Amino acid sequence: MKDAGPSRLESQLRFILEIDRLKVVERRSYPSGIDRLENSAEHSWHVSLMAQVFAEYAEEPVDLIRVQRMLLIHDLVEIDAGDTFAYDEAANRDKSVRELAAADRIFAILPIDQAGEMRKLWDEFEACESAEARFAAALDRLMPMLHNFHTQGRSWKQHGITRTQVIERNQTIAQGSKRLWEFAKGIIEEAVELGYLDE
Amino acid sequence: MKDAGPSRLESQLRFILEIDRLKVVERRSYPSGIDRLENSAEHSWHVSLMAQVFAEYAEEPVDLIRVQRMLLIHDLVEIDAGDTFAYDEAANRDKSVRELAAADRIFAILPIDQAGEMRKLWDEFEACESAEARFAAALDRLMPMLHNFHTQGRSWKQHGITRTQVIERNQTIAQGSKRLWEFAKGIIEEAVELGYLDE
Repeated sequence: MKDAGPSRLESQLRFILEIDRLKVVERRSYPSGIDRLENSAEHSWHVSLMAQVFAEYAEEPVDLIRVQRMLLIHDLVEIDAGDTFAYDEAANRDKSVRELAAADRIFAILPIDQAGEMRKLWDEFEACESAEARFAAALDRLMPMLHNFHTQGRSWKQHGITRTQVIERNQTIAQGSKRLWEFAKGIIEEAVELGYLDE
Repeated sequence: MKDAGPSRLESQLRFILEIDRLKVVERRSYPSGIDRLENSAEHSWHVSLMAQVFAEYAEEPVDLIRVQRMLLIHDLVEIDAGDTFAYDEAANRDKSVRELAAADRIFAILPIDQAGEMRKLWDEFEACESAEARFAAALDRLMPMLHNFHTQGRSWKQHGITRTQVIERNQTIAQGSKRLWEFAKGIIEEAVELGYLDE
């Protein structure tokens, strides 16, 4: 056990309370059967648990604890930077600048060793170059597709999203899991047939 | 990689969509700076991430992945059983019956191997006899105290909770982390002094 001096614990508590704010960051997804937008804290929980269930579909062997830790923290930067809609090209242009500034502020609330550790993990998720990051990113992209499909394309329709956009945006799922991308492609085609998604 | 036949994946997807419902289970806590009750999905995310930050205070060495997995699933039974307020004695009398029925239904949506694995983990959390379960339970109890303290005792006051009740209910935190229970006791005394909590 490390030294539990008050200032270390105080920094950790400040971080724990700061991240409450992720609960008011609205995403563009509607959870199935719920008539309101999802927030990023709920989403982070959902994809972290999804990692447990879908671990067997990871393209390469992954260290599940690292996938889960990444997914638990992957959206914290949205506390400052907001949720950037995947299909909003303008907002995506300055997304990384906004999110880097947020990462600089938020992780630094923690004691320096933990700040460094979490920041490294977040950087790894963003770079999407490790097996764990690719699998985590695949789940992060798959979930909104599931939500869209199971709400009759509610968010896709609201924003006039097309089949081509969904494929372009999400085809990197294959890098994390070919099996899940095969499944996702099936969902996209079915969504078009059912009129949930524009051709 | 296990056989990814359609029916296995279908069961997993049904589970993933079923647990969306945890996002509408209201707790009795107000997150800091947010003028609405917290839901159990947000809470599950928050305590899972808290486990990363506070791991160093665990009373015994813990396997962090097991703590996190436990915390991600610990409230799933509330989808059927609802959130039982810690200080509601009547509701707590039949809580375990309601939650056991919920566990029987919800985990069984998964393929049999995963259902068994998650159920075992949930049973372990409930039994609170392993180092991981004791530490997870400590965090689960500490978080609402933090929320109460940082919202001027909003939920404590609404329900007329007293210092004695808070101590009786939460002293098991010490089994998971003496250091965090020392801290929690300090918060309780300060809350009484500040008029957030009745003597």
